[in-house]
Amino acid sequence: MPSSNEHILRSYDDELSRLKGELARMGQIAVAQIEGAMDVLERRDSRAAERVILNDEAIDLLEASVSHDVLLLLARRQPMARDLREVMAALRIAADIERIGDYAANVAKRTIALNLSAPIPPAANLPTLAETAIELVRDVLIAYRESDADLARQVWERDVELDALYTSLFRELLTYMMEDSRNITPATHVLFMAKNIERIGDHATNIAENVWFLVTGTPLEEPRKKGDLTATGAVDPERPRKD
Amino acid sequence: MPSSNEHILRSYDDELSRLKGELARMGQIAVAQIEGAMDVLERRDSRAAERVILNDEAIDLLEASVSHDVLLLLARRQPMARDLREVMAALRIAADIERIGDYAANVAKRTIALNLSAPIPPAANLPTLAETAIELVRDVLIAYRESDADLARQVWERDVELDALYTSLFRELLTYMMEDSRNITPATHVLFMAKNIERIGDHATNIAENVWFLVTGTPLEEPRKKGDLTATGAVDPERPRKD
Repeated sequence: MPSSNEHILRSYDDELSRLKGELARMGQIAVAQIEGAMDVLERRDSRAAERVILNDEAIDLLEASVSHDVLLLLARRQPMARDLREVMAALRIAADIERIGDYAANVAKRTIALNLSAPIPPAANLPTLAETAIELVRDVLIAYRESDADLARQVWERDVELDALYTSLFRELLTYMMEDSRNITPATHVLFMAKNIERIGDHATNIAENVWFLVTGTPLEEPRKKGDLTATGAVDPERPRKD
Repeated sequence: MPSSNEHILRSYDDELSRLKGELARMGQIAVAQIEGAMDVLERRDSRAAERVILNDEAIDLLEASVSHDVLLLLARRQPMARDLREVMAALRIAADIERIGDYAANVAKRTIALNLSAPIPPAANLPTLAETAIELVRDVLIAYRESDADLARQVWERDVELDALYTSLFRELLTYMMEDSRNITPATHVLFMAKNIERIGDHATNIAENVWFLVTGTPLEEPRKKGDLTATGAVDPERPRKD
């Protein structure tokens, strides 16, 4: 029955594009949340920080709805091969975006604690870290939308920039703590904020790996140094997830 | 065709129990990894730490296989209602166990950095934190295996113990840093280790919520304080995921 098949195909595509639409919205909110967290950090605005923290709920609700839609779609449609890869990727990417949103909210939470003490210089370096993280998240979401494997690989390779920025900020923060013990508490909060942003980059990398696999059907692999070099001084990445 | 239905049902149950078996194995390895990380911390054995870090791969591979099995099962079987909840829960729980394994590996990585400096007293309090985390993970895995909603709720409620231990350790570490600047670098590593263990508790809580929902069909909710109270001094939990 070609007409019935046609109908099934058409509505399957509709469901898929609705999914990708939900993921795009999640991604936009996640990026806005990172920008919002950096904004409240700069303005030392604890009230605005509370708003960023509350906004995270929107991403969580979208992720729950994506997971639910994906699983119902799998259950109803029994997709195989490329289609199955597509929905698996949507599920994983939604989870990564949700985690990016959590880290952005955590940064906003830290600004509240940070505002309890006087400003410290290293906080000025966080925005550079955040801008790089935002670029990676933006680019990998474009790569997903456009099925652009090359752009995904660029994001995957650029994560080392973020790791290098994090490592130098980590070292700088330690020196501020050693210079003046009054810096220890605020610097500790900045340290956790920087760590959260570095983790955002790891999730952008996870998404890049999913996009690459989705488009090429082969895993994105290459021996290279990445991750938080401060954790061991060794090269093992401190990754929030490995896909 | 009853015989064919029977066959389908039987092999569906087989697939489900195989899945739960894989999750049980993942959970056992994850618990062993936390214990291993604490052991290398105590013995200051960087070589053993490398082994713990490498072992994490086993959990990642199991999680990938669980995700794949779940999605194929959904695609082939089109489970609905309770069955769909069952496989959704398996997928989410596998992801949480995988993250618990990552945090255990991160703790092991930190021990390598920690061994570069002299031992500091607060590290002695980490094991208490870790033992509580291990209890929560063990119990929630039993709750999943036994479909024990009450045990799941107990784990969910006990996470505040872990948060309280983390908060006091956090405060203690800051005082050590302030007393002697030579403590700053090692105390920073202990701080990240403690944070990783506190996050393990959050994932045990996520699993507890999934078990509760799986067994009761209703979300496990109750207004209560939890999470890293050091992040804001506010009560918003710093959660790695919200399910």
